[in-house]
Amino acid sequence: MLRRKDTDIPATDVEMDGAEGVKIRVIISKEDGAPNCVMRRFTIEPGGHTPYHTHNWEHEIYVLSGEGEARQGDQRHPMNPGTVILAIPNEEHNFNNTGTEPLDFLCIVPHMQEK
Amino acid sequence: MLRRKDTDIPATDVEMDGAEGVKIRVIISKEDGAPNCVMRRFTIEPGGHTPYHTHNWEHEIYVLSGEGEARQGDQRHPMNPGTVILAIPNEEHNFNNTGTEPLDFLCIVPHMQEK
Repeated sequence: MLRRKDTDIPATDVEMDGAEGVKIRVIISKEDGAPNCVMRRFTIEPGGHTPYHTHNWEHEIYVLSGEGEARQGDQRHPMNPGTVILAIPNEEHNFNNTGTEPLDFLCIVPHMQEK
Repeated sequence: MLRRKDTDIPATDVEMDGAEGVKIRVIISKEDGAPNCVMRRFTIEPGGHTPYHTHNWEHEIYVLSGEGEARQGDQRHPMNPGTVILAIPNEEHNFNNTGTEPLDFLCIVPHMQEK
């Protein structure tokens, strides 16, 4: 059994095109022995956002702290603690910090595509 | 894009043998359109615990609030907010509320086995 604190994993900058002020911690990975799902913790600075993009796997989001918006076309979905978001495969989306504090959320993906 | 609050899903009692004082909310399911991973939120009352058991898929835990212990044989791993636990396939485990407040955590599993 693996036990750690999320903050035991150093946060690294997300360097993808379209990402601004985003850090990631991969807190459970395939290398840890998880055959199917990867757990990541993201931190977005105020004004920052993830890339507006699409891919053929799901994003499963759980908001831990902060305030933001999940965007899809003209849609704006509020993000705050306890918010759950599912972007199904091939749905365009991004996540934006619209508040004054860091926006922290978990994002689970299948391990075959860890983006 | 699906957006909800975790508390929009009613909590139901876990009726499995060996479970005591445990409620579950399935907050992202296959029926929502997630092809791979299922996100559940558990609440364990003080003194309660999940079954001590094993299965051939992983449990990925993220503790939201409360205090507890993950047990495996003689091992005792503390659970508190921000704790991450991975029980790999076929590892025995259970989760126990050793505190005075509810113990709340997320538990992600691959959808083929939603236990």
